[in-house]
Amino acid sequence: MDLLLLSNGKVAGNTKVMEFALPAITEVFNRKKVKNVVVIPYAVIRSSHDDRTAMVADSLSHLDVSVTGLHTADDPVKAIRDADAIVVSGGNTWVLNKTLHDLGLIGPIQHAVAKLGVPYIGWSAGTVISAPTIRTTNDMCIVSAAITPSLSFVPFQINAHYIDATIEGHMGETRDERIEEFLIVNPHQSVLGIPEGSWLAVSGDKMTYQAANDKPMHWFKLNQERKIIEAGSDVTELLSLDC
Amino acid sequence: MDLLLLSNGKVAGNTKVMEFALPAITEVFNRKKVKNVVVIPYAVIRSSHDDRTAMVADSLSHLDVSVTGLHTADDPVKAIRDADAIVVSGGNTWVLNKTLHDLGLIGPIQHAVAKLGVPYIGWSAGTVISAPTIRTTNDMCIVSAAITPSLSFVPFQINAHYIDATIEGHMGETRDERIEEFLIVNPHQSVLGIPEGSWLAVSGDKMTYQAANDKPMHWFKLNQERKIIEAGSDVTELLSLDC
Repeated sequence: MDLLLLSNGKVAGNTKVMEFALPAITEVFNRKKVKNVVVIPYAVIRSSHDDRTAMVADSLSHLDVSVTGLHTADDPVKAIRDADAIVVSGGNTWVLNKTLHDLGLIGPIQHAVAKLGVPYIGWSAGTVISAPTIRTTNDMCIVSAAITPSLSFVPFQINAHYIDATIEGHMGETRDERIEEFLIVNPHQSVLGIPEGSWLAVSGDKMTYQAANDKPMHWFKLNQERKIIEAGSDVTELLSLDC
Repeated sequence: MDLLLLSNGKVAGNTKVMEFALPAITEVFNRKKVKNVVVIPYAVIRSSHDDRTAMVADSLSHLDVSVTGLHTADDPVKAIRDADAIVVSGGNTWVLNKTLHDLGLIGPIQHAVAKLGVPYIGWSAGTVISAPTIRTTNDMCIVSAAITPSLSFVPFQINAHYIDATIEGHMGETRDERIEEFLIVNPHQSVLGIPEGSWLAVSGDKMTYQAANDKPMHWFKLNQERKIIEAGSDVTELLSLDC
């Protein structure tokens, strides 16, 4: 597999989506000789699928690739089969995951990425769905049917946009407390909190943790002190976790 | 119906849960001659159901009432039928709602509250489940089966702990943007954002909005400017919304 799982789309100063990880994306696309990029924009609710696809095309404009939005395909399953690379936009994770299930795309994407080695680039919601389930997403379940199982490219849960700060005076549960709730109910699982500007890079059997801003990743397990993992670390061992 | 739907359990300076709304709770319990209070603590994950029940008993210690945790009942359905009042603790909304469905308690609670007029007091998760669905909760779906339909005592969605502040530098969607996503996908519904320290008080056919700290409530509808509703307002009209 070649996965680049970005926490989010932009950090301060970025004008393009995925800008902070473009060197990594460029390396993968060149190495895999990618020509035909399919963008999955289904998570996008507050702007159009066309606009989001165009934003991705703009980010990739330095490469000699064609960029197509999956929402424009007559046959989305065939479009996934024909893709040299898949880019999945952030937005609402519940809408994204339900749409992939509704259109029968989970199996074809799993086949392309996990069996054929088609590069998979996601950010935010597009990263959360690479886990066994989307149950550690931060957004609201705005769809009528709440479907949580997802692509399972990695064996741990992901919390994107991870942050351990809180708004002063706010009494609601913190992000860390919500992750703790998840682990109490799901005691064998792990949650990786990846801060904005960071990504997990899977290439073959190896995984590293990268961050444009050097923020560390937090690895949560029940009844264990969290592990703080620095940017640049080899985290291949996490690919062998129980899920 | 007699509902007191609190945004959260404590505001700054409170030592007891529901402290900021105790005058309103006392008024309802005295008026309804409540003796037997049943606490529903199923949302509580990070501490025990016993402890949470004891916290509620402590908050009600000025009243001549017995307080029992529903988790200790041999027959939870019978315990609901025998209750003079129901108090539902905050915690994880998904766990709370799934547990009520699993134990067959949704119908009995609806019957007690909506048909027999048994007072219902909730905070946070206990308030969110009074809506048609829990899809505007802030917490993570930590359970394996994501069940969203809920008690439907009111015809609008509730966002508890509502806040329009954000953490500086954080690029993730704001609370308002997530509510906007909900409304785009569910264009006929309304979402009420109730800030910490506030509550909705339903008595018979009337509803008012109250707040210990005078913070306003925000009423969100698709393609309409939000309505800012001041504490002390009669909001009975919201009980006639489409859902």
